[in-house]
Amino acid sequence: MEQERILNIMERVQSGELTPEQAVLQLKMEPFQDLGYAKIDHHRALRQGAAEVIYGAGKSAAQIAGIASAMLEKGGKNILITRMDPEKAEEAGRLLPMRYDPVSRVGIVGPDTEITGRGIVAVATGGTSDLPVAEEAALTAEALGNRVERLYDVGVAGLHRLLAKMDVIMSARVVVAVAGMEGALASVLGGLVDCPVIAVPTSVGYGANFGGLSALLSMLNSCASGVSVVNIDNGFGAGYLASMINHIGG
Amino acid sequence: MEQERILNIMERVQSGELTPEQAVLQLKMEPFQDLGYAKIDHHRALRQGAAEVIYGAGKSAAQIAGIASAMLEKGGKNILITRMDPEKAEEAGRLLPMRYDPVSRVGIVGPDTEITGRGIVAVATGGTSDLPVAEEAALTAEALGNRVERLYDVGVAGLHRLLAKMDVIMSARVVVAVAGMEGALASVLGGLVDCPVIAVPTSVGYGANFGGLSALLSMLNSCASGVSVVNIDNGFGAGYLASMINHIGG
Amino acid sequence: MEQERILNIMERVQSGELTPEQAVLQLKMEPFQDLGYAKIDHHRALRQGAAEVIYGAGKSAAQIAGIASAMLEKGGKNILITRMDPEKAEEAGRLLPMRYDPVSRVGIVGPDTEITGRGIVAVATGGTSDLPVAEEAALTAEALGNRVERLYDVGVAGLHRLLAKMDVIMSARVVVAVAGMEGALASVLGGLVDCPVIAVPTSVGYGANFGGLSALLSMLNSCASGVSVVNIDNGFGAGYLASMINHIGG
Amino acid sequence: MEQERILNIMERVQSGELTPEQAVLQLKMEPFQDLGYAKIDHHRALRQGAAEVIYGAGKSAAQIAGIASAMLEKGGKNILITRMDPEKAEEAGRLLPMRYDPVSRVGIVGPDTEITGRGIVAVATGGTSDLPVAEEAALTAEALGNRVERLYDVGVAGLHRLLAKMDVIMSARVVVAVAGMEGALASVLGGLVDCPVIAVPTSVGYGANFGGLSALLSMLNSCASGVSVVNIDNGFGAGYLASMINHIGG
Amino acid sequence: MEQERILNIMERVQSGELTPEQAVLQLKMEPFQDLGYAKIDHHRALRQGAAEVIYGAGKSAAQIAGIASAMLEKGGKNILITRMDPEKAEEAGRLLPMRYDPVSRVGIVGPDTEITGRGIVAVATGGTSDLPVAEEAALTAEALGNRVERLYDVGVAGLHRLLAKMDVIMSARVVVAVAGMEGALASVLGGLVDCPVIAVPTSVGYGANFGGLSALLSMLNSCASGVSVVNIDNGFGAGYLASMINHIGG
Amino acid sequence: MEQERILNIMERVQSGELTPEQAVLQLKMEPFQDLGYAKIDHHRALRQGAAEVIYGAGKSAAQIAGIASAMLEKGGKNILITRMDPEKAEEAGRLLPMRYDPVSRVGIVGPDTEITGRGIVAVATGGTSDLPVAEEAALTAEALGNRVERLYDVGVAGLHRLLAKMDVIMSARVVVAVAGMEGALASVLGGLVDCPVIAVPTSVGYGANFGGLSALLSMLNSCASGVSVVNIDNGFGAGYLASMINHIGG
Amino acid sequence: MEQERILNIMERVQSGELTPEQAVLQLKMEPFQDLGYAKIDHHRALRQGAAEVIYGAGKSAAQIAGIASAMLEKGGKNILITRMDPEKAEEAGRLLPMRYDPVSRVGIVGPDTEITGRGIVAVATGGTSDLPVAEEAALTAEALGNRVERLYDVGVAGLHRLLAKMDVIMSARVVVAVAGMEGALASVLGGLVDCPVIAVPTSVGYGANFGGLSALLSMLNSCASGVSVVNIDNGFGAGYLASMINHIGG
Amino acid sequence: MEQERILNIMERVQSGELTPEQAVLQLKMEPFQDLGYAKIDHHRALRQGAAEVIYGAGKSAAQIAGIASAMLEKGGKNILITRMDPEKAEEAGRLLPMRYDPVSRVGIVGPDTEITGRGIVAVATGGTSDLPVAEEAALTAEALGNRVERLYDVGVAGLHRLLAKMDVIMSARVVVAVAGMEGALASVLGGLVDCPVIAVPTSVGYGANFGGLSALLSMLNSCASGVSVVNIDNGFGAGYLASMINHIGG
Repeated sequence: MEQERILNIMERVQSGELTPEQAVLQLKMEPFQDLGYAKIDHHRALRQGAAEVIYGAGKSAAQIAGIASAMLEKGGKNILITRMDPEKAEEAGRLLPMRYDPVSRVGIVGPDTEITGRGIVAVATGGTSDLPVAEEAALTAEALGNRVERLYDVGVAGLHRLLAKMDVIMSARVVVAVAGMEGALASVLGGLVDCPVIAVPTSVGYGANFGGLSALLSMLNSCASGVSVVNIDNGFGAGYLASMINHIGG
Repeated sequence: MEQERILNIMERVQSGELTPEQAVLQLKMEPFQDLGYAKIDHHRALRQGAAEVIYGAGKSAAQIAGIASAMLEKGGKNILITRMDPEKAEEAGRLLPMRYDPVSRVGIVGPDTEITGRGIVAVATGGTSDLPVAEEAALTAEALGNRVERLYDVGVAGLHRLLAKMDVIMSARVVVAVAGMEGALASVLGGLVDCPVIAVPTSVGYGANFGGLSALLSMLNSCASGVSVVNIDNGFGAGYLASMINHIGG
Repeated sequence: MEQERILNIMERVQSGELTPEQAVLQLKMEPFQDLGYAKIDHHRALRQGAAEVIYGAGKSAAQIAGIASAMLEKGGKNILITRMDPEKAEEAGRLLPMRYDPVSRVGIVGPDTEITGRGIVAVATGGTSDLPVAEEAALTAEALGNRVERLYDVGVAGLHRLLAKMDVIMSARVVVAVAGMEGALASVLGGLVDCPVIAVPTSVGYGANFGGLSALLSMLNSCASGVSVVNIDNGFGAGYLASMINHIGG
Repeated sequence: MEQERILNIMERVQSGELTPEQAVLQLKMEPFQDLGYAKIDHHRALRQGAAEVIYGAGKSAAQIAGIASAMLEKGGKNILITRMDPEKAEEAGRLLPMRYDPVSRVGIVGPDTEITGRGIVAVATGGTSDLPVAEEAALTAEALGNRVERLYDVGVAGLHRLLAKMDVIMSARVVVAVAGMEGALASVLGGLVDCPVIAVPTSVGYGANFGGLSALLSMLNSCASGVSVVNIDNGFGAGYLASMINHIGG
Repeated sequence: MEQERILNIMERVQSGELTPEQAVLQLKMEPFQDLGYAKIDHHRALRQGAAEVIYGAGKSAAQIAGIASAMLEKGGKNILITRMDPEKAEEAGRLLPMRYDPVSRVGIVGPDTEITGRGIVAVATGGTSDLPVAEEAALTAEALGNRVERLYDVGVAGLHRLLAKMDVIMSARVVVAVAGMEGALASVLGGLVDCPVIAVPTSVGYGANFGGLSALLSMLNSCASGVSVVNIDNGFGAGYLASMINHIGG
Repeated sequence: MEQERILNIMERVQSGELTPEQAVLQLKMEPFQDLGYAKIDHHRALRQGAAEVIYGAGKSAAQIAGIASAMLEKGGKNILITRMDPEKAEEAGRLLPMRYDPVSRVGIVGPDTEITGRGIVAVATGGTSDLPVAEEAALTAEALGNRVERLYDVGVAGLHRLLAKMDVIMSARVVVAVAGMEGALASVLGGLVDCPVIAVPTSVGYGANFGGLSALLSMLNSCASGVSVVNIDNGFGAGYLASMINHIGG
Repeated sequence: MEQERILNIMERVQSGELTPEQAVLQLKMEPFQDLGYAKIDHHRALRQGAAEVIYGAGKSAAQIAGIASAMLEKGGKNILITRMDPEKAEEAGRLLPMRYDPVSRVGIVGPDTEITGRGIVAVATGGTSDLPVAEEAALTAEALGNRVERLYDVGVAGLHRLLAKMDVIMSARVVVAVAGMEGALASVLGGLVDCPVIAVPTSVGYGANFGGLSALLSMLNSCASGVSVVNIDNGFGAGYLASMINHIGG
Repeated sequence: MEQERILNIMERVQSGELTPEQAVLQLKMEPFQDLGYAKIDHHRALRQGAAEVIYGAGKSAAQIAGIASAMLEKGGKNILITRMDPEKAEEAGRLLPMRYDPVSRVGIVGPDTEITGRGIVAVATGGTSDLPVAEEAALTAEALGNRVERLYDVGVAGLHRLLAKMDVIMSARVVVAVAGMEGALASVLGGLVDCPVIAVPTSVGYGANFGGLSALLSMLNSCASGVSVVNIDNGFGAGYLASMINHIGG
C-alpha cells in the first residue's frame, strides 16, 4: 500500500502533474494530524485494520476529549480510551458522549462496531482480582468487533473450576489468559487448547510477586506451546492482538 | 473431543460393554506411552494439531533416538529435535536417519510435511548473531508445514536495510522478530505491519544485556500493538506459535 | 532434653561429684567431634531425629570418607552424601563401601534403614530434566526411612498425565513437587491434595528462567494453600522435610 | 474421594438412573456456588480439611459480607477474612457479626472451632514490627483448630531472649518463624528444633531489605534442615500449613 | 588555570608578599561561598563554562531563593532550578523573580543568555508522556545558550512520523533522544544521524518497565554507534551535555 | 562475664545456697524486662557498652514513651529514638521531656552523656540531601559520648571542596562517609585517610539509583582499603559502630 | 543528503531518464552489499563519517576476512575488528594482512588513517585490569583519526596519581573514563574537566560487582555534569563517540 | 602530613632553595614508581600504616614478581599477593622466594612482621566451605601484624558449636564473620560481642544464593549493632580493616 502511494506520486511526477520538489514534499506529508500535544494517525485504521487507541494515563480530560473528537470527525468508531480515572472520565464525558467502565477504567466513544471477528475470543482469569485487566482485554476485543466469552476466577488452585468450562475454552479461536501470582493459568490453558494463548501477567499479589514479575517470568517460561506474553497488566495489548488473530483468514 | 471420548465411554457403560470399574480405568488410561525416562504423547497431534517436539538439551543421544523412533512408528512426520549438540546429533544420526542443522542445532526425523499453512511466515533478525535462534524458528515453522521468508540482519540501526524489504514483510501473515541487544526490531516491525508480530529476545550481546534481559524488557514494553513475546532464545516457541496462527482460518 | 542434661550436671555439683569448674567445662563440652576441617555432630540424630548429612560439593574424597567413617564408627546408618561428582564418588568408594546414584549424585554409606515413616511420600516432577533434583529428594526420604512414590514427567502442560496419577497423589501424606520453568506443578498439586506440598524449584530451563528464579517466584506466589518452598535445586532439603512431616504423629 | 464420586456416577449410569448425557453433565457440575464476582467452593472443607478463606484486599465490604454470608448459610465456622482494612471491617461488621483484629487486619465470622490440632503451633517473631504478620499466622492457626504459643521479639541479635524460651519452642509440633531484616531466626530455630519450621519473611526493614527480599533469600538459603518458606508477609499461608501439619497423624 | 593560580601564589611567596604559612592558607581558600546548608561554587562557570544549577528536589523554597540570590549577586545569568514543585516555585517566586515551566518543573532566574552554541540541539521524544523530561532537557540547553529544535511524539511504532522530520534531525549538531517504554528511539536515531546522540530513558510506562529499566537497558545496548546514555529521567544532564558538545570548536 | 555469672551460680549450688532446680531457673532468668509489646534489655549497656536504642518507625508515641520511661528509671542516659515522625515526637514529647531533631528525625531522652570517645568522629556527606542520614549518624555518635566533626556537601564532583577540609579529615579516628547517587565519596575518603571509613549509602537520587542500590554497590566495590558498609540510610548503625571504634583502646 | 538523493531520482523521472517503476526500484536499491551471512554498508562512511566496524565475537575467521576484504576493495582504511580471539586473529591474519593487539583483542586492516580529529582524546582507567577495555577505546579512536593520550591506573583510591596528571586531562577535548568496581573515576573526572566525559563501566571486579553493574549504576548516577555512559566493557562505543565529538567543529 | 610537606616546599621557596617553577614540579612529583603496567605507591605505608597489596587476579606471574621485587627493594615486609592461582604462584615462586597458601590462594613475600596489633582478631566461619575466604582474611591480618584466632564451622544451624567458643569470641578486639548461604552468623555474633564485627558474605551456596547476594543482603540488614559489611568473598578487605581497628589506640 505504501508502495502504491509512492508509485502514484511518481506517475504524477512523470505526467508533469507534480514537480520533483512537490513530490518530495508529498512524500513527507504524513497522514497524521498534529494537535500540538499529540499526533493523530487517521490512516492507521487503513494500515493496521484498527483505529488508534488513546492511552489515557498521562493526559488531561480536555486532551482526551480533543483527540477523541478529532478522531470522531474523521469517522472513527468505537474509539477506545484506556487507563482513564473515573474523575477524568466524568470530566471528559461532559465534553463528549462516552461509555465508561469503572472496573477496567476503559472509556468508549463513537458508534458501535459490528462483529467482524471470525470466532470467539475467550478471556480467562485466575482470580477475582484480575478482573480489571481482563475487562480491559475483553472490552478492547469487543470494541474491535469480536465476540468475547468471559471465564473469570478459574485459577489452577481449583482445577475443577477450569475443567468445568472446557467446552467454552475448546471452542475459542484465541484465548487470553489473565493471571497474577504464579501465573500458572497460561501454561494449563496452553496445554489444553489448540489455539494461540495470549498470556497477560497481572500485578495482583504481594511480597515476592514483585509487581507482577512472578507471573511474567512464569508465563515466559511456560512449558506449553502456543503461548506468548504481553506486558504486565496490558489488557489492551492482549485484546488488540486477540482481535488481530481472530480476524485472520478472510 | 475430550467430551466425546467421555460420552463414548459412558455409552459403552450403558450398553454393558464396560463395567463401571472398567470405565474408571479407561478414563485413567491416557493416550501416552511410557518409556520410563519420558512419556510420549501420541495423541497430541490430534489435540493440538502438531506432533510433539523433543527438547534435546538434557537427553542422551540414545534417549533422543528412542523417543523419535517410537514417534516414527506411530506415523510421526517431521519430528523436531531442538537444542541438540553436534556430537549428540552425530551419535543419534547413527541410530536413525536425521537431517541436522548445526547453526540452529535442530534435527529433523521422518518424512517431509506438505505445506498446509495458509500464508507466509516472515522471520526477521536484527543482526547476524541472532541467526541460530531465527533458524530454530524458521525450521520449526517449515517442519510444521509453513512457507517461511527469511530477512536476516535488518536491525534498526540501519533502517534502510529493513525498509528495502518492506514488500516481503507486508506480505506476511505473521512475523517473527528475532533480536538481541536493544530488541527494537519488534517495535519497528509492529508499527509497520498489520499482522501479529511474535518477538523473540535473544541473549546476543554483552554487558548490560544481562543474558537477554535488555531485549526481553524492550519487547515487553513495545509501544506497538500486535506484538507478543516468547522466552529468550525460544526460536522453537515462536515458530510453533507462528505456525498455529498461519493455520487459522481453514 | 537440654534442660535435663543441665539439671543432671547440677545434681552432680550438689552431690560433690563435680566441682563448679568441672561443671562449667562439662556444659561447654559439646557432643561433636572435631576433625579439623569439620565438626561432626553425633548427637544430632538424638536432637533432630536424623543423622547428619555430608554436603559433598566443596569437600575432597578423602574428607568425605573421613567424615563418613567417623559417623559409621558411632553407629551411623544410611549416611547421605549429596552433590558428589562421579569421580569423587569412585575415589571415596575405594576408601569405604558406598552405594552411588549418578543421576542425583547422591552416595549412601552404612546399613539400610528400616521404614519408620507413617505414610507415603510422593515425589512428582514437571519434566524429565527435573529428575536429578527429584531423585535427591526421593533417595534422601528413603534413606531416612520413608516409602516413596515417584511421579515423573507430569507437568501441567499435559494435565491428563497428572490426572491419571490422582490416586497415588491423593494417597500421599506429603507431596514433594519438583519443577523448573514456570513451576506451576506446585500450585496445581496444592489445589488437588489435602496434605502439605513441599515445592522445589529447579534451575531447569533457559532464558528468562534466570537460573530457577521463575520457578522459585512462581512457587512462592502459589495461590494454593499448604504449599511451602525450599531453595532452588534443594532436593535434599525437600526430602528431609518430607521425612520429618511423615514421621509426625507417633 | 474424587474417584468414589466418579464411580458412583457410573454405577448410576449402569443402573439406568442416569443417561450418559446426564452423567457428563453431572461430572461437570462443580460443587461451587457462583456469586458473579466470585466462585465459592463449599466442598473445599471436605476435600482439603479446611473452610475457604476470603482474601479481603481487593474486595468491597459488601462483597466480603456477601461471600461470608453464603458460607455461613452452608454451615461455615470460623470463616477467615484476611487483609481487611479497619474501615472495611467496620462496614462489613454492620452487615454481619464479625470479630476483627486491627493488628493483623484479620476478621473472623461464625461460631468458634473446637481444638482439633494434635500438638502446639509455636509462632515466633524476630522483632516487634513483625507482629501483624505473626498474628495473621496465629489467628489463622487458631481459627483452624490449633493451640498456638506466641514468642514475640526473640530475634537473633539477642540470643538470650530466644534461649530463655527453649522449653516452649522444643515442645511445639511445628514452628512458624516470622522475621524481616536478615531473617536469621528461621535458621537458628531450624537448628534447635526437631520439627518442621515454616519461615515467613516479612517486608519489615528498609534500604537493602528491598521489600522483604533480604529475609526471603536468607530463609531460602537456610543451612538448617527442616525449614521451608512461604511468600513475604504471608502469615495466612504459614498458619494454614502449620495447621495442616498439626492435624497429621489421626 | 589551576596551575597558574598555584604559580602565582608561589611567585608571591618568592617575592616575600606572602609568608609560606599564608600561602598554605591561600591554597586552601576555596572559591566557594558557604551558606551553611550548601556550598556555592561561583568559579565553576570559569572552570566548566556554565553556571551551577540548583537541584530543587530536596530543598525548601527559602533555601532555593537564598542560593539563587547569592548566585545572582555574583553576576549569574539564566540560573536553572530543576525538579521544583509548583507550590515551591510559587513560594520562591515571591522571594525573587522567576520564570517557571510547570511541565518540566524547571525554574529560571536572572537575565537571558545570548545564543553561544554553534549549531542546533534537536530534542526528540518517543511519546507525549515523555514531554516533562524532554522539556527539562530543552530548557536547560536554551538556558545555556543553545538553539533547540523539538520533535515530540515521533516514536518508532509510527516510523513515518520520525521520517517526516528527517531534515530537522539531519541538520542537528547533537540529538537528545528521550523515550520510555522500549526506548528504541535512540537506536533508530543513532542509525540515521552522524552526530552524537544523547539517550535519556524515561520512567514512562508500566509493568515490566520497572521504573525506566527497560528503556535504560535498551539504550545501553543500542547497536547504533555514537549513542551514550544518561540517568533515567535526567533531562537536565542531557541538556547540559548537549550544550557542552554544541559549544565545542570555538 | 557470662562465664563468671555461671560460675557464681554453680558456687552457690555447691554451697547449698541454691537448689539445682533454682539454679536452672536462675540461668533462665534473663536480664530483660517484658513490657508486652517489647522486651527491654537493661543489661545491654553492660554487655555492649551502650544503651539500647528505640527504633521509632513502627511504634506508637505511647509505646515509645513507655519504653523510654522504663529505661530512664533504670538510669538510662541519652536514650536515642530513631526514625520518629514529627507528629509522634510532639505527642511523645508531651509524655516525657525529649530533645527532637526534625532533620534526622532523632529524639533524645535523658541527661547528657560526657565525652568518653578517644578521638574525633568525622561525618562527611556527598551532598545537601544526604543531611538527614548524616545527622542521624552524628547525633547517635554524640549521644554515645563522641566528639563529632561535620563535613557536609563535599561530594567528589567538586573535589576542591573535599581537599579544603583535608586537615579535619586526616585528624579523625574514624570517618563516616554518607553519600547517595554514585557513592564515590567513600572510595575517595578511603584512599586519603589511614583510619576506618564506615560507608553509608543513601537513597538520595532518582532513576537508576534504584532506592540507594547504586551507592550501595559502589561502596561495596570500593577499591580503597579500610572501607566497610552499613545498610542504605542506616545513619544510626554507622554512628553506633563509629562510637564503638572510637572507644577502643582504653 | 538522503533528501538530495531522492530529489536527484525525481529529477531523472521528470527528465524521462527513469520510469516511475525504475525510480521505485532505485529507492529500494540500498547501498549495501549482501555477503549472505552479513550485509556490508559501504556508504556508511559517507552517512556517518566513519567506516563500518566488524564485531568479531560471533563470526568465524573466514567470515571476518571475507567482510574485511570486501571493505578493503571498496577503499576502506583502518578497518576495525573488535572482540577477536587470538586464535581467530592468527587464522584471519593468514588470509589478509592485519595488525592485532592481544590486550584489547582488536585487529586493524588496511592503510593508516591520517589525524583528522581536532583535539586530544584522553583515555583514563581506574586500575590495571581495565586496560583491555581502555585499549579498545584508544585503538578505535586512533583508527578513526584521533590523537589519544593514555592515563592508566589513576583510580580514585589514590587521588594523587590522578591529580599528578591534571595537565593532560585538562588539555583534552573529550575524556573517556574506563573503570570497574565502584566506577567513581567518571564522577571525579566529570567534576574536574570542562569537556564531555564518556564513562565506560567495566566488568572488572568480583562479588557485588555483578558483572559490571556496580560501575554502571555508579556512572549513571554521577553527580557530575557532562558525563554520559555506554554499555559495560564497550570500549569501541566510547572510542567511536569520542572521535565523533573530537571531529565536531570543522 | 600532606600539609607539612607543602609547608616544607614553601619554606624552601622562601629560602630560595627552590624556584617557584621547581616547587610546582615538586608538588606534582608523586611518591610512586611507574613500572609501566602498574604504579607502586611506596609511601602508602607511611600514609596508611600498611604496605600495598598486590591483587593477583588479572596479573601475570612475571608482573607479580616484578611488583613484589620493587617493593622488597624499598624495604617492604610481608608483602601480600591475593587471588593468585597455584600455577602462577609456582611460576612466581621461581622468580622470588614466596610462602603460598593454596586454600586462600594468598602468597606472602619478604620477612615476617612482628606483632603490633593490640588485641586479638577473631575470624569465624559459618561452614567448612567458607574457609578460603576466611583464610584470606586471617593471613592478611597476620601479615599486617595481628594475632588471629580462628573459629571455623560455627554456623547458626548448630548454635552449640558457636556458644562453646564464647570465651574466644568475647576476648577478641574485632571479629571477622565469614558466612555464605543465609549469612546469619554476623547477626548472631553482633548480638553477642561488644566489639566491631566485620561481616564477609561469601558466594558459598547455590540456587537462590545468587552468587552471595543472599548472605550480602542478610548481613546488610543485620538487626545487631556494630556490624558492617565488605564485598562478597573479600577476605582481604576484612582482614585489612580488622588490622586497622586492632592497631587503634596506641
